[in-house]
Order: sequence, then structure tokens, then C-alpha cells
Amino acid sequence: MDEVADRSILAIDLGGTRIRAAHVSPDLVVSCRRVVDTRDEEGVEAVIDRICATAVAVRDDAQRAGLPDPVGIGISSPGPLDPWRGVVLETPNLAGWSGVPITERVEAALGLPAFLERDTNVAVMAEWRHGVARGSDDVVYVTVSTGIGGGIVVNGEPLIGTDGTAGEIGHLTVELDGPLCGDGVPGHVEAIGSGTAIAREGRALLERGEAPGLAALTNDPTAVDAELVARAADEGDAACQAVLAHAWEAIGAMCAGLVNVLNPEVIVLGGSIAMHRPELRDAVRAGIDRRAFPIPARRVRVEVAEHGDDVSLIGLLPIVNQRLNDPAFRRQTG
Amino acid sequence: MDEVADRSILAIDLGGTRIRAAHVSPDLVVSCRRVVDTRDEEGVEAVIDRICATAVAVRDDAQRAGLPDPVGIGISSPGPLDPWRGVVLETPNLAGWSGVPITERVEAALGLPAFLERDTNVAVMAEWRHGVARGSDDVVYVTVSTGIGGGIVVNGEPLIGTDGTAGEIGHLTVELDGPLCGDGVPGHVEAIGSGTAIAREGRALLERGEAPGLAALTNDPTAVDAELVARAADEGDAACQAVLAHAWEAIGAMCAGLVNVLNPEVIVLGGSIAMHRPELRDAVRAGIDRRAFPIPARRVRVEVAEHGDDVSLIGLLPIVNQRLNDPAFRRQTG
Repeated sequence: MDEVADRSILAIDLGGTRIRAAHVSPDLVVSCRRVVDTRDEEGVEAVIDRICATAVAVRDDAQRAGLPDPVGIGISSPGPLDPWRGVVLETPNLAGWSGVPITERVEAALGLPAFLERDTNVAVMAEWRHGVARGSDDVVYVTVSTGIGGGIVVNGEPLIGTDGTAGEIGHLTVELDGPLCGDGVPGHVEAIGSGTAIAREGRALLERGEAPGLAALTNDPTAVDAELVARAADEGDAACQAVLAHAWEAIGAMCAGLVNVLNPEVIVLGGSIAMHRPELRDAVRAGIDRRAFPIPARRVRVEVAEHGDDVSLIGLLPIVNQRLNDPAFRRQTG
Repeated sequence: MDEVADRSILAIDLGGTRIRAAHVSPDLVVSCRRVVDTRDEEGVEAVIDRICATAVAVRDDAQRAGLPDPVGIGISSPGPLDPWRGVVLETPNLAGWSGVPITERVEAALGLPAFLERDTNVAVMAEWRHGVARGSDDVVYVTVSTGIGGGIVVNGEPLIGTDGTAGEIGHLTVELDGPLCGDGVPGHVEAIGSGTAIAREGRALLERGEAPGLAALTNDPTAVDAELVARAADEGDAACQAVLAHAWEAIGAMCAGLVNVLNPEVIVLGGSIAMHRPELRDAVRAGIDRRAFPIPARRVRVEVAEHGDDVSLIGLLPIVNQRLNDPAFRRQTG
């Protein structure tokens, strides 16, 4: 992969809540940003139309601004998805999306080749090619927000697996009989360490009257989210502090396991919780030092993502430029 | 890597209990086998002398038998080790071994280039290049015996990590507050699913008088090993059955996690427990179907190693042949 050859792209970040689009240049300048709500409850076609309209608007803005023409379009999306055919398979984060050939539709609307990748795989590309993991051959990107996910680089190449679904580190079991995940499986780290899990535990504490500090902030269980639990913890609520400590411990144990299995040079922490709770980095470091073998534990650096929320836009730059020359990725246009 | 070019080698399998050596030909015939006890309590030098003497004896036998001259020597050893410098680092399975430049010593004794790799990485090479995982680009080899370990292939290449220590899947946490591993860490799958863990639980049951079936086989706690616990379970001891069920569940959860993280095409089960307990394969299949995402769960085949105990000899054939042409691996001779 030759960085020098990278050319400007249109980047689309399709999320469960928002669609973000922008022009990304080879010097990593993100411009002509647009954000619209996803509103997946309106159906797949409405969302696709919104994606295409947003991308067209960004392209037109970029043209008016005199920016270089994009050579292609990158789409970052929750998985699972088929990156080769450009199809979103059956993602739990987008209601009704199952077998949606999103790149085909975007290509037809914009007349440019389009490529699809899972959001976390895009994020690891951003940090590996252009961020804190630059120059490393073995990298794990860990996102901690609503859910827990990951993107992995080994031997200097993205690890995507046989079907392109690799990297689902949030679905490592850390407690055989632990709380249930969204998919009904017990004890995944996501069911303990994610924002969703922290909010669930906070709500339960509030309902049982066991979190006076949280109760001082709200008496409405439906208003409890991870941020509020963290605020109550910061203000001294011991039960909320224990929820966070359990979450960080689970994430630390997961990272220690990945250190033992992958022996990476860098673990990059991203996602809203990692960006807002600096103690998570310390907890991951402590978990690795406690639970991983000395040699790989000493090796690994634990870093917070340099590009924050923009990882899912910037990471598309190397992906699009690389896939334009890779016949394994189908496209109609270009 | 070009299989056609493979030439005969001398293979040495250094284990905590035994040293095995043999001549391995490109058509996978293992001949002139020799086995001696390791006896690491006699010290590093004595073991090295035994390794060299055994290898010399195999070489002489092969010569007398008119077999093709070996082009090099492969050494399979417990880790951690440095495969590039050929140094055993500080393996818990070989008392007193720390920073032992084993390839240098073997090269000096035999006048042939020697290469070192961790036993589980050798095993995955055997099954990936010449066994049930042949033709797959994404493979996980899981060994279940005294301990639990692994070797991984992704993107058609061995995953060895930044320091060569990758693949330590036995040290994934599956219970945050579970039993302690040999290294003092709680809840690793090795502390629940390994032969050592099964024996530990059996001994505890016997001491507490809670395993009548096991007590019928022995009244000496020190005589309890995993095999005896399994025999008691087979003969109807419910407590021993529960120990095995817990072990298989932990291994199944670990494998499910690896399916989510690596999306492999094949999981190969090896090691003495996997070879002797066919129900482990079913338990791993069930664990994956229960705990992994549908797409990678449907994809992965679960197989028992084709080469059994010989994985750690046969896997050295492609390793030696490949490294002879790889300047990253130092050697004095050749």
C-alpha cells in the first residue's frame, strides 16, 4: 500500500444515530462536513436516499470550494457486512437493514466507485496509517461506546477474517455466566463494559434505591445513561463507582487476553467512553499488567485515538485508494 | 512459500517430559524416531547434551537407512521463545531455562542450520500446510492437554506477533474472578479447561469426599490426574462429570470468542485431551453455536488434528524449509 499515491475521497460514516459525510484530502484535512440524522425507523430506502443526498451535497460543496475531485467514495458502517460486494448484511444497529447493496446505490447516485467497510476496521486504518499506531505492524483498535468493538492489524495487514467479520472483540466471553448481551449470550465483555451495560446497571441500582448519588441526579430510570452513571460516580456514589470499576476491569481483562493472543505493539482506545474517561486507559494498562504474560505486556503501548470521532472518516482514505486497484472488490463505476 | 521445494529435515520436539526426534521427509514420512526423557531437573546443560546426542543418533540412523540428507534442523519447544535468534526465553515448562541459545548449540553439534519455534505454532503449521486445515487462509489450532495453547494463521500467514509470543489463547480470561492459573492470574481458560485444572478440581473433590466414583478408583489425592477424573465421570460420578462439563464450557466459550475475533475457516483441536475425548469437539461446536455471531459460527469447521502427536514434528518441515531462505532468522551454519 503506497500512501504517496492517496487521492481525495468522499467519506460517509453511516451510524445508527447519525450519517456524517465529508471530503477527505490526502493531507487528512476533513472539509465540507455534513451531518444528518439516520432515522432508520423510516425504512431502508429513506436512509439510502439521505445518504446519497448528503454525499451529493458534500461533493457539490467541495467542487465549489475548489477542492480536488474525489476518486471514490468510502462508506463506514456497523457490521456485519460484506466488504467485497459492498453489502450491509444484518446489522443490529440499523433496523431493517439486511442484505442492502449500499455501494451499488451510492455509486449509481454519484457516478463514482464506492467501497464499504465496518466502522471499527475503518477506525484501525485511520490510527494505523495516520495516527498513534503509525509504523506498527500489529495493532488493536478498541472502541468503547454504546457497544464494544475492534479492528485489528497483524503482520502489517488488516485482519478481516474469512467473511470479513473478524474483530468483534466485544463478544469475547469474560464471565461464563455473566449478564446477557443484546444477542442473548451471557458474559460477553460488551454486556459488562459498554455504555449500554453501564446504563443498564445504573438503572437497576436506581430502581432498587441503591444509588443515592444517581438518585440525586434523576429519579427517572429511562433517563439513566452511561454518562449520568459516570457523573454520579464522580460525585461520590459508591455503587456507581463499583459499576464503572467492574466495566473497566472487564475491558482490561479483554485487552489482556488480546495481548496474549495477538502480541500487538499498540492498543488504541477510541469511542465516546474512551475519549471522555481517561481512567479507562489506566485501567486497561493495569489489566494488561495484571493478566497478560510479561513479554507481550511490556511490549504493548496503550494509547487513546488521535483522530477521535474522525477515525471513521479518515480511515476511509487509505481503504478507498487501495481498493481502487484491488480486483477483489466489485464496483459498477470507475 | 513453495511446498514443492521442501526437503528433508531433522525434527526435534523438546517437551517438559520428553525429547522426541526424527527424520521428516517431504512426503511427511516420520522415520528414525528417538525418544528420551527430558529430565530438566538435571540442569540446562544436561538437557542440551541429550538433545544434541538424540539428534546425532537420528541423523546417523537416517544416513544408515539411506534417507536423504537433512537440509536443516527444526526445534519445537514450549514458549516464550525468540524464534529469530533461536533462544528459549523463560519457559515455565522447562525448569531453569531462561535465555538458552538452543539453536546455536544444536548447530554447533550437528553442523546444520537450526530453527526454533513454539510447539503450538509448529502444530498449526502441520495442520495448515499438511493436515485438516490445508488450503485455508484463516486457521486456529487449539491444544488441550496439561495446558491450553494455540497457534494461529490469518491472511494465509502465521500470526506470531511483535515478539513472537502471539497465540497464547489459554490465557484469555473467561471468568473475571475464576480460579488462579499457574502464573497467579484469575480466570484464564487454562485454569478451568486444562488437564491440570481438571486434576486440581478432582483432587479437591476427593479431599472433600464429594466424588464417590473417583474415590472408588483411588484414595490418594496425588494420584488424581485428568484421565482419572474423566474415567470416574465415564463411570457415572456426577461431580467429576460437572468438572468436565465446566472445562468443556470454558473451552467452548474461548473458541467462540476466537471465532468472533478472528473469523477463521477452521478450528483444529489437538493435544492429548482433545485426542482422547471426542466429546470436546461437540462441546466446542456447541459453544460456538451458542456464543458466537451467526455468520462466523456458520463458517467455521471444527476438526480434530490429523497428525496427532506428530504435529510438532511434521510442522517443522515447512518452517525449516522456509526459514533457510529468510534472512530474518539468524544462524551460524548452512
